[in-house]
Amino acid sequence: MSVLLIFPGRDPKIWVDAIKEQQPNVKLYVYPEEHNPEEITYAVTWKHPKGIFNKYSNLKVIASIGAGVDHIISDPEIPKKALITRIIDEQLTLDMSTFVLGLVLDKIRNISIHHGEKIWNPKAYSTAKEEKIGVMGLGVLGKAAAINLSKNGFEVSGWSKSQKQIEGVNTYHGQNGLNDFLKNTSILICLLPLTSETECILNKELFEKLPKGAYIINVARGEHLVEYDLLEMLDNGQLSGASLDVFRTEPLPEEHPFWKHPKVHISPHIASTTNPKQVAHQLMENYLRLKERKPLRNIVNLKKEY
Amino acid sequence: MSVLLIFPGRDPKIWVDAIKEQQPNVKLYVYPEEHNPEEITYAVTWKHPKGIFNKYSNLKVIASIGAGVDHIISDPEIPKKALITRIIDEQLTLDMSTFVLGLVLDKIRNISIHHGEKIWNPKAYSTAKEEKIGVMGLGVLGKAAAINLSKNGFEVSGWSKSQKQIEGVNTYHGQNGLNDFLKNTSILICLLPLTSETECILNKELFEKLPKGAYIINVARGEHLVEYDLLEMLDNGQLSGASLDVFRTEPLPEEHPFWKHPKVHISPHIASTTNPKQVAHQLMENYLRLKERKPLRNIVNLKKEY
Repeated sequence: MSVLLIFPGRDPKIWVDAIKEQQPNVKLYVYPEEHNPEEITYAVTWKHPKGIFNKYSNLKVIASIGAGVDHIISDPEIPKKALITRIIDEQLTLDMSTFVLGLVLDKIRNISIHHGEKIWNPKAYSTAKEEKIGVMGLGVLGKAAAINLSKNGFEVSGWSKSQKQIEGVNTYHGQNGLNDFLKNTSILICLLPLTSETECILNKELFEKLPKGAYIINVARGEHLVEYDLLEMLDNGQLSGASLDVFRTEPLPEEHPFWKHPKVHISPHIASTTNPKQVAHQLMENYLRLKERKPLRNIVNLKKEY
Repeated sequence: MSVLLIFPGRDPKIWVDAIKEQQPNVKLYVYPEEHNPEEITYAVTWKHPKGIFNKYSNLKVIASIGAGVDHIISDPEIPKKALITRIIDEQLTLDMSTFVLGLVLDKIRNISIHHGEKIWNPKAYSTAKEEKIGVMGLGVLGKAAAINLSKNGFEVSGWSKSQKQIEGVNTYHGQNGLNDFLKNTSILICLLPLTSETECILNKELFEKLPKGAYIINVARGEHLVEYDLLEMLDNGQLSGASLDVFRTEPLPEEHPFWKHPKVHISPHIASTTNPKQVAHQLMENYLRLKERKPLRNIVNLKKEY
């Protein structure tokens, strides 16, 4: 019943401390320090080296430290019998909603454009009632962001794979509902989970179904977006701009054309940041449930991939 | 019963059209085109040349086209018997609330800093529940901005000259309430009317009463702020930054030190912009009321100066 932390490229100390604070007696290893793979039943990870889980024959749980599990599921060699869990945290959800509202207000009121220009060049603004927001993905994060925008006076539509009902939000679903959803959207927000079906969903064909001059906000995963298609649609005027918080390669490489494009607004994946102190109790709650053979919380449906 | 429009430095055409659309038969002059001053009873103005109203012996009303009337009252030669009116417009109020929320989210989530940096440099963000917003001025605009921030999860206090009660907002008033108001404020928003009492109110002495690292948002008037004091407090770390939409001289001169200061975020007076089509009916409603000797709407209290 030992726990393995796997955070390549991150300092694990803050996680070790947060977990020890919750469960002082837990036996904890930080990959790749020396340990016996047979002993590990519970892995806590973010972007593990692909293929490593093969050796862990007693692994019962692979726990993501964030809302997304695409970094786990994308490994074809994860053990079939291991459960995958994710974090659902009220503060993470709130942080995402707040950030999305901030990006929408930034767009309609030209805040970062004005702050960045360093010249007196007033631009006309638009108002909440002139915009039609479309949120793709109505899971925990998408739903909360949609409701928050609606409460702030925006007309909000939402699109998801399966049918959903959300008060104050016009919902569409499935491939059949996508065209109607897109044709009424002036600001498109991507909050989809990254799955084999949603990868590359933000592409030329989709952008062309939006009204001319639509704006794109991607706060989900870089892999949702076909980068070349976005640049083409910005340059031909079909899209008026994009605010991107996530990228196929992070940090976004210095030479990437997004950095210099005047219509691309970049933030460095800061929409919602897991606070180890805040989520360690969730991780350890599932660890105790596993020990006591109780059902775990926030298990991912492997068929749906989220 | 003629109307005089006085908009030095602005194109009056859009106003003429909007007024004519409301009242096609109104007799309308645009200053300084030839007209008989005796004939003018109703002046519609924004920043008139000081002293000109002396000649208008039959002037009954001087109507501001915005929420502020400081540009009228600051003229010592306005006729004592003329009433001064201002615009109270739901959309203007909403635009101000939206912009203020946008600036607050920009500050706590570092949106325009990230967008402007053009390098991958993630910064820690703060959340609504970690901030204490203080709104100075609880008139129509200040009250709406305070309520909107409170609805978005912020703890909000408000300060005004006279006592006010606003649901969800901790209110303070008068000189006696100012210290307590300031000592709990991490983001200070100025939405005061500009009067002889509030001019230069954002000064060193006030800034020093805020917690170290407080942030200033001024969306009222440039004359509220002592610019040199702001720069001193930013440079010594007492203040962490400022977002300014209004300035003593507008456009802000190219050589002004604010443009180059890394902690000063400038927008070119775009918090809420009067839409002539939207407010022409208010102007003409008061014009008709004057004609019919009915009480006018939105008259300014000259003693209070707002």
